[in-house]
Amino acid sequence: MEKKIAILPGDGVGKEVSRGAVTILQAVSERFGHTFQYVYGKIGGTAIDEYGTPLPEHTLDLCKGSDAVLLGAVGGPKWDQLPGHIRPEKGLLKIRKELELYANVRPVQYYRSISGISPLRKEVVEGADMVVVRELTGGLYFGKPSERTFQEGKASVVDTLFYQKNEMERVIRYAFELATTRSGKVTSVDKANVLESSRMWRETAEEIASEFPDVKLEHMLVDNAAMQLIKNPRQFDVIVTENLFGDILSDEASVLTGSLGMLPSASVSAQGPNLYEPIHGSAPDIAGRNAANPIAMILSVAMMLRMSFGLVEEAEAVENAVKQVLEAGSRTSDIASTGVFPLTTEQMAEEIKAAL
Amino acid sequence: MEKKIAILPGDGVGKEVSRGAVTILQAVSERFGHTFQYVYGKIGGTAIDEYGTPLPEHTLDLCKGSDAVLLGAVGGPKWDQLPGHIRPEKGLLKIRKELELYANVRPVQYYRSISGISPLRKEVVEGADMVVVRELTGGLYFGKPSERTFQEGKASVVDTLFYQKNEMERVIRYAFELATTRSGKVTSVDKANVLESSRMWRETAEEIASEFPDVKLEHMLVDNAAMQLIKNPRQFDVIVTENLFGDILSDEASVLTGSLGMLPSASVSAQGPNLYEPIHGSAPDIAGRNAANPIAMILSVAMMLRMSFGLVEEAEAVENAVKQVLEAGSRTSDIASTGVFPLTTEQMAEEIKAAL
Ligand SMILES: CC(C)[C@H](C(=O)O)[C@@H](O)C(=O)O
Ligand SMILES: CC(C)[C@H](C(=O)O)[C@@H](O)C(=O)O
Repeated sequence: MEKKIAILPGDGVGKEVSRGAVTILQAVSERFGHTFQYVYGKIGGTAIDEYGTPLPEHTLDLCKGSDAVLLGAVGGPKWDQLPGHIRPEKGLLKIRKELELYANVRPVQYYRSISGISPLRKEVVEGADMVVVRELTGGLYFGKPSERTFQEGKASVVDTLFYQKNEMERVIRYAFELATTRSGKVTSVDKANVLESSRMWRETAEEIASEFPDVKLEHMLVDNAAMQLIKNPRQFDVIVTENLFGDILSDEASVLTGSLGMLPSASVSAQGPNLYEPIHGSAPDIAGRNAANPIAMILSVAMMLRMSFGLVEEAEAVENAVKQVLEAGSRTSDIASTGVFPLTTEQMAEEIKAAL
Repeated sequence: MEKKIAILPGDGVGKEVSRGAVTILQAVSERFGHTFQYVYGKIGGTAIDEYGTPLPEHTLDLCKGSDAVLLGAVGGPKWDQLPGHIRPEKGLLKIRKELELYANVRPVQYYRSISGISPLRKEVVEGADMVVVRELTGGLYFGKPSERTFQEGKASVVDTLFYQKNEMERVIRYAFELATTRSGKVTSVDKANVLESSRMWRETAEEIASEFPDVKLEHMLVDNAAMQLIKNPRQFDVIVTENLFGDILSDEASVLTGSLGMLPSASVSAQGPNLYEPIHGSAPDIAGRNAANPIAMILSVAMMLRMSFGLVEEAEAVENAVKQVLEAGSRTSDIASTGVFPLTTEQMAEEIKAAL
C-alpha cells in the first residue's frame, strides 16, 4: 500500500514525538511492505515565527492533498502574548474547521502495567475502557458573536454557543456506529436542564438512537458526568458530547490512565483526510529535552493505520508493541515510579520499534 | 439573637433533609439561647403542583423578608416532561437571579473518618481542602438568545454566554477576600485560549489581584483544571470560575469527599439574604425512604450560622458534632462501607443533635 502522510510537528514536544511516530511508521512499512511518503508542514507557533500565521495556506493544501494528517502539538509561552487571532491555538481550530474534523475520538483505557500512576483506587478504575466522542467544529468554539460589547454603558462580553441540527446528527451517528463495534452503549452528555442547545442535542440523540435498535442510549447531565467518570468509570463505553463539554470531560477522563502522555486521538473528517494527534499539549516545561512520552503519538499512528488506511493488523501490531514494552517495564518519566530511571523519547520509540 | 429563616424544602429528599436541619437549629437555639423563627415556602415541583409555577411570588417575598434562606432540593421525574419554563430547575435559577445570589461557595474537604468512600487513592487525596467559588447569576444560564432558529433553511439552536464585567469583578473579589482567610491562593479557571469571555475574565482576575497583594493568583484552563482536581487536589485552595465551569468542576470536586451527601453550599447575595443548600439534588431514587444523608444540609446550616448571622462558635459546634459522629462510626447508606447497617436520615440528625 502507498500512502501520503502529512506530518505537522508543531511546537514544543510535538517535534520530538513526531520523530517517534516516523520511527514507528518506518518499522511498519518495512515489516508489512507498505510505502509511506511523508510531507512536512508548519502549524502553531513555529508557523507564526516563519509566516506570521498559525496555519499557512500551503500547510492546509498539503493536508488536503494527503491521505491522513499527523499532528504533534501547538502552543507555548513564547506566543502567549500575541493577539487572539494569531495565537498558535487558532491554527488548531482553523485546521479542524477547514478539514471539517467533526468528530474527535479519544479512547481512554486503564493499563494494568502502569496502574501505579492512576490517582484512582485500583478497585474503581480497573477494567475501565471507554471512548469519548467530542463534536469538534461547532459550539462555543466557533459561534459568532464572540466579542466585547457595551450594554447600557457597561463593559460586557459575549460568546455564542451555536449548532446546526445536522452537526449534532453526524457526530452522534458516528458515536452510535462506534458503539455497535463495542459494547453497544452510548452515553450522551448534555445540560438539558438549562441549555436549549442541549435540549436539541438530547432530542437528536433520541432520533439517531431509533436508527440503532441494538445500541442502548443513556442521557447524562454534564455535571453528573464529571462526577461519574471518577466515581464509577466502568459504567461508560461510548460517550458523545458537544465541543466544550467534550474538551473538559476527555481531559478529565485521561486521569483514569494516569498520564496524558499515553492517550491518542483521531479527528474524523466529513470529507477530507482524518487528523491524528496525541491529546497532550506542547509541554513547554519539558520541550527540547528528549523527555516526552511518545506513546500517545505512536498510538495515534495506530489509530491512523486502522481508521484511515484500514490496516487493522498493522494497527494491532503497533498497539501490542506498546503493551509489550510497558509490560517489560519501559518507562518515560511521566509514567515512571520514583526510583526508576526513565527512558528518553527516542529510546522509548526505539524499544517499541524493536518490539514490532 | 433572633433570626427569621425561610425554609424551602422543595422536592424529594429535600423535604427529609430540611427536617434534619430544623432538628439541628433547634438544638443550637437551645444550647446557645437564640430564637429562630421558621417560615416555610414552596419551590420546584411541589410549587408547580400547587401553584403552576416553580417559584411563586409569595415564596420569593417570604425569602426577601427573611434573614437567610435554607433550600432542600428541587426536581424529579414527575416534572421532567413539562415545558422548559415551568420545570422545577427554573425555580432554582429564578431564585438565584431574584435574590442576586452572585457567588456560590462550595467547600470540599477530605474526611479521614470516611476515607474509604473516596474513589481516589489516599496518598492523592489526603489533606485536600478547597473551596469552589462559582459565579451563579450569569453566563450561559441566563444569556439571551437561547432558542431554536432557522439559518439558511437549516434547523439550528443558539445559547448565549453573556457577562458584564462588574459581574465578574464581584465574584472574583469575593474569592480573593475568602482567600485572605485561608492559605492565600486563588486559582481562576477559564478557557482563555478559546473564549473572549474567558479572556475578559482573566484580565479582570488580574485587576482584582492587584487589590490583594498578599494573595497569589494562578490561572488554569478549564480542561486542565478538570484533570488537576483529580491528579493533584491538594494544590488548590480557592477556585473561582464562571457559572457553567463552576457547575461542572464543583460536582467533580465532590468526588474527593466521596459522597454528595456530605457537601454544603452557600450562595451569597449582593443585597438580600444568602441562600444555603446541600449540593446534592432531590435524589428521586431514595426519596421518601428516610435514607438520605442530612449532613450536607446540616453543614449548610453551619455555613448560614457563620456567614449570615456571624455565629462562629455555633457554626463550629455544629461542624464538630458532625465530625464527632463520623469518627464514632455513624453512617447513612451513602457513606457506609458494605456490611455496615446504615442509619436513617432522622437517626443521623438525632445523633448529631446529641453530639451538640
Ligand atoms: C488548545 C485548545 C484550543 C484545544 C481545545 O480546547 O480544543 C485543546 O485543549 C484540545 O483539547 O485539543
Ligand atoms: C439543577 C441545575 C439547574 C443546577 C445548576 O446547573 O446550577 C444544579 O446542577 C446545581 O449545581 O445547583
